[in-house]
Amino acid sequence: MSDQQVKKFPSDIEISRAAKLLPIAKIAANIGIDPEDIIPYGKYKAKIPLSYINEDKIKESNLILVTAVTPNKAGVGKTVTSVASSLGLNYIGKKTAVALREPSLGPCFGMKGGAAGGGYSQVLPMDEINLHFTGDFHAITCANNMIAALLDNYQYQNRKNDKGLERIVWRRVLDVNDRSLRQIVTGLGGTGNGIPTEAGFDITTASEIMALLCLATDLDDLLARIERIVLGFRFDKTPFTVKDLGVAEAITVLLKDAIMPNLVQTTENTTAFIHGGPFANIAHGCNSVIATKMAMSSNEYVVTEAGFGSDLGAEKFLDIKCRLTGLTPKATVIVVTTGALKLHGGVADGEISKPNKEAMITGLGNLRRHINNMKEFGQSVIVSFNRHKHDNDDEVGYLENWCGEEGVAFAINNGFTTGGEGAAALGKKIVEVVENNPSKPINFAYDLEDSIGTKIEKIAKRVYKAGEVTFSQTVENKIKSYTKNGWANLPICIAKTQYSFSDDPKRVNAPEGFSLHIRDIVIQAGAGFIVAIAGEIMRMPGLPEDPQAYRIKLVDGEIEGLS
Amino acid sequence: MSDQQVKKFPSDIEISRAAKLLPIAKIAANIGIDPEDIIPYGKYKAKIPLSYINEDKIKESNLILVTAVTPNKAGVGKTVTSVASSLGLNYIGKKTAVALREPSLGPCFGMKGGAAGGGYSQVLPMDEINLHFTGDFHAITCANNMIAALLDNYQYQNRKNDKGLERIVWRRVLDVNDRSLRQIVTGLGGTGNGIPTEAGFDITTASEIMALLCLATDLDDLLARIERIVLGFRFDKTPFTVKDLGVAEAITVLLKDAIMPNLVQTTENTTAFIHGGPFANIAHGCNSVIATKMAMSSNEYVVTEAGFGSDLGAEKFLDIKCRLTGLTPKATVIVVTTGALKLHGGVADGEISKPNKEAMITGLGNLRRHINNMKEFGQSVIVSFNRHKHDNDDEVGYLENWCGEEGVAFAINNGFTTGGEGAAALGKKIVEVVENNPSKPINFAYDLEDSIGTKIEKIAKRVYKAGEVTFSQTVENKIKSYTKNGWANLPICIAKTQYSFSDDPKRVNAPEGFSLHIRDIVIQAGAGFIVAIAGEIMRMPGLPEDPQAYRIKLVDGEIEGLS
Repeated sequence: MSDQQVKKFPSDIEISRAAKLLPIAKIAANIGIDPEDIIPYGKYKAKIPLSYINEDKIKESNLILVTAVTPNKAGVGKTVTSVASSLGLNYIGKKTAVALREPSLGPCFGMKGGAAGGGYSQVLPMDEINLHFTGDFHAITCANNMIAALLDNYQYQNRKNDKGLERIVWRRVLDVNDRSLRQIVTGLGGTGNGIPTEAGFDITTASEIMALLCLATDLDDLLARIERIVLGFRFDKTPFTVKDLGVAEAITVLLKDAIMPNLVQTTENTTAFIHGGPFANIAHGCNSVIATKMAMSSNEYVVTEAGFGSDLGAEKFLDIKCRLTGLTPKATVIVVTTGALKLHGGVADGEISKPNKEAMITGLGNLRRHINNMKEFGQSVIVSFNRHKHDNDDEVGYLENWCGEEGVAFAINNGFTTGGEGAAALGKKIVEVVENNPSKPINFAYDLEDSIGTKIEKIAKRVYKAGEVTFSQTVENKIKSYTKNGWANLPICIAKTQYSFSDDPKRVNAPEGFSLHIRDIVIQAGAGFIVAIAGEIMRMPGLPEDPQAYRIKLVDGEIEGLS
Repeated sequence: MSDQQVKKFPSDIEISRAAKLLPIAKIAANIGIDPEDIIPYGKYKAKIPLSYINEDKIKESNLILVTAVTPNKAGVGKTVTSVASSLGLNYIGKKTAVALREPSLGPCFGMKGGAAGGGYSQVLPMDEINLHFTGDFHAITCANNMIAALLDNYQYQNRKNDKGLERIVWRRVLDVNDRSLRQIVTGLGGTGNGIPTEAGFDITTASEIMALLCLATDLDDLLARIERIVLGFRFDKTPFTVKDLGVAEAITVLLKDAIMPNLVQTTENTTAFIHGGPFANIAHGCNSVIATKMAMSSNEYVVTEAGFGSDLGAEKFLDIKCRLTGLTPKATVIVVTTGALKLHGGVADGEISKPNKEAMITGLGNLRRHINNMKEFGQSVIVSFNRHKHDNDDEVGYLENWCGEEGVAFAINNGFTTGGEGAAALGKKIVEVVENNPSKPINFAYDLEDSIGTKIEKIAKRVYKAGEVTFSQTVENKIKSYTKNGWANLPICIAKTQYSFSDDPKRVNAPEGFSLHIRDIVIQAGAGFIVAIAGEIMRMPGLPEDPQAYRIKLVDGEIEGLS
């Protein structure tokens, strides 16, 4: 939530509750989906069969990517901007859907904040979307842990012969922030309880099942990806997959509903698809391919977002998701706030609401880097400014002028406070760019045929502006082994801090010439990429001292405390 | 599945698939529920708001309890008999619903077998019911583990002061058979990962959340029960509850949909409510109070089941669920097979399909004990015989005669092979008993005011026919502490083997005068009972050498391998 809201500006949940929702069958009918074909989950949510993907219509639709500058801790409002963009486009007469990621229960009950937008730019029903929604995360949790149980059982049943594995790399997941489960020992209490093993849980969004579900193109592709998941290694060092375990089909059965996109609506009854929510760090961090394509099958414009700043989210969106699918955004929106710019200009996070034009100007180096990176990918860029009440006209005017001088489109987004009307200027700017100056074909950061090391270096040098990349001995060894296993041609998914172009969260603005250290790589053959880890990565968050759960409650049948 | 099926008799999934399902709104309308009020989950499942519980109509409805003799390993067909009874009653013109428990994914993917009935006595859509259904088990898993994470976080945040707990008794759950998770150590890997703690996972059906959801009478009662859950004990030995943790309301929010009963249909499009599935061992093992009451609010007859033999399931149904709600079954159906009787007559489990009248006659001691026990509770009894193809007329005739001599109603149930028509005789017998000789008010096995020890002794002596009950020192101490904490007036839920009236699974038939040893007791203040443990209890099953998951798959969009 932004502090754009003036006194008495209603809370997200109040706005959500006051909205007049249309039956989901009506929302479906609006985009040509036969109400008989939808699979309702209550009155305002539905799953849509994959048959509503139409490749011909996808070619006619305009995909808009929303990304951001390097964010401050509170974020710069990417989801709000995505929803607002779609409202603005609809407001000016363009049939538009927004395609978003599903929220995770962990953060909802931990730090305040779901992922359903905010103010008058929300997807609804916000509370149901933030809670169990249509059960996708539960199905993924279940599939992930069913594999773990079957794998441990395989080890247990083969404990007296040589068919067991030397090393297991598969971890369990739960959709909760639970630091105690990061590192555990299982199988204690005697031989009847399995084999004592070091193990651990990640949050569900970090599951490879989540990543591959979001990249699968249909049910057959889903099965093929599940088959390829690497669970561990045999004593002869060869990989052992879900196919080898013999349960890929059973796991696919658990995901047969989860693969269908979820249709909901915005605060202005326009179309929203919300599907999948892979970690924006160790995975590619954008919604499902299937949902994006389904949204494009029935809309002139589709707005979608990619996690964190453009160095993480947009790079993966383009190099992984777009390369896989052939999709190309016609334009990329970069979200910026004066607060984030001041942070990059050297101001402490707690002070970024105060006027400081000089720091803002210094911080423009970060925005320029993101703009130039996106341009290098071939993208036409629109800078979308999220105005907050502490902003002054002098700073905003300077920013607008600066964008003009840089030759990049600029718009102020007031979607949070006034919905589609407030985002109409942004919508117009998007249409202007798409119609007159759309993005060029994607200039990928690397070729799939490059070696694993070269791919990592190309991303680091071209996108992050690293001077050099170093690899740990583990990584060197794994590169050899992965290449031998035939995984060298997979794309790369770099896991690093979202707070800097470098691997050091303290190096704000636009650092260059630094050394990026890759300490580990991880094969995700099911998702179809190699994760390269730079720095420390948290795959299971913890709860804060004062979790949001202390404030969530039902009052007269309505939920309080979600946002 | 029974071996009543002749060659080429279709499989459960084939019958399920061939059935012509009615839209769930139509099923709802049949029992007076406004289609606008239902919350659909796809076309054939719906949740029904609690407002459809009508206390006046409940008084006019006839509740029928289905229980069984002490079962053999494969079971005697209690769910099939429950569904068949409802089909038979509908067949003869009585408006009847069946109220069942939800299946667990663990056994579905482990040992072959869901819990949706079988043959032509099934609840449908069988595959969806056996998989994620409407997400109730996932919501319960999530609520249970959210409490665990918040509790561990409480310990972590208070690690430097004296507010932390000395002992945690709350365990995590997953809906999977995973022996490796029974006993684990969490919080490893350094201080950032919490405090190293002995912990473990049970299967979701064993969660206290499951038990209390099934006993809650409305949303307020659900909240009150969640508040009372004991999570551990402080250093001064006082209990620490979910209310003390401050998250009861947030956890209730996670369960606000799960508390609503699920409406589905049978193979003959009659009404089925399927809701909740507490362990029939450490919990009370019957479907939710809310679903039973909702089914009774709109049907002349409601058939429901209680887990395992009558010594476990029916005793808890009567002493816990009926005492709590004031419900009284008008009749109790005891399911019997010649196979189970032969087992009690001394035949090995693998040989019970062979003719052996003498052994069957010996085994009648077990049936007589169950009949007499139910009569002592005040129940009017009908013995329902599940005929299998290996049965011969001589044995069946003897059994029928024997029941006549014992003065107990008897019917042959052919619902598995021929649905309602095959269960019509059973239906008629039920109506006959209800109309001419209904059960008397329940003669409970104990009074709530009895001491904890006395209550356990009364169940053991009256129902199990134990000669004496011994308590471990732990139990003696806990009884004192529980009494001090004000829990002495709670009912008792005994956890013991389902294969014998005693605590020794090998003592078949009708043992008496044995000594029953209570090795532990556990407070479940949220569920509202004290669990008394006699013998070894498995709260988390393991997978077999050849799990059913190896055979579950999608073929042309249809699921194979579930039953």
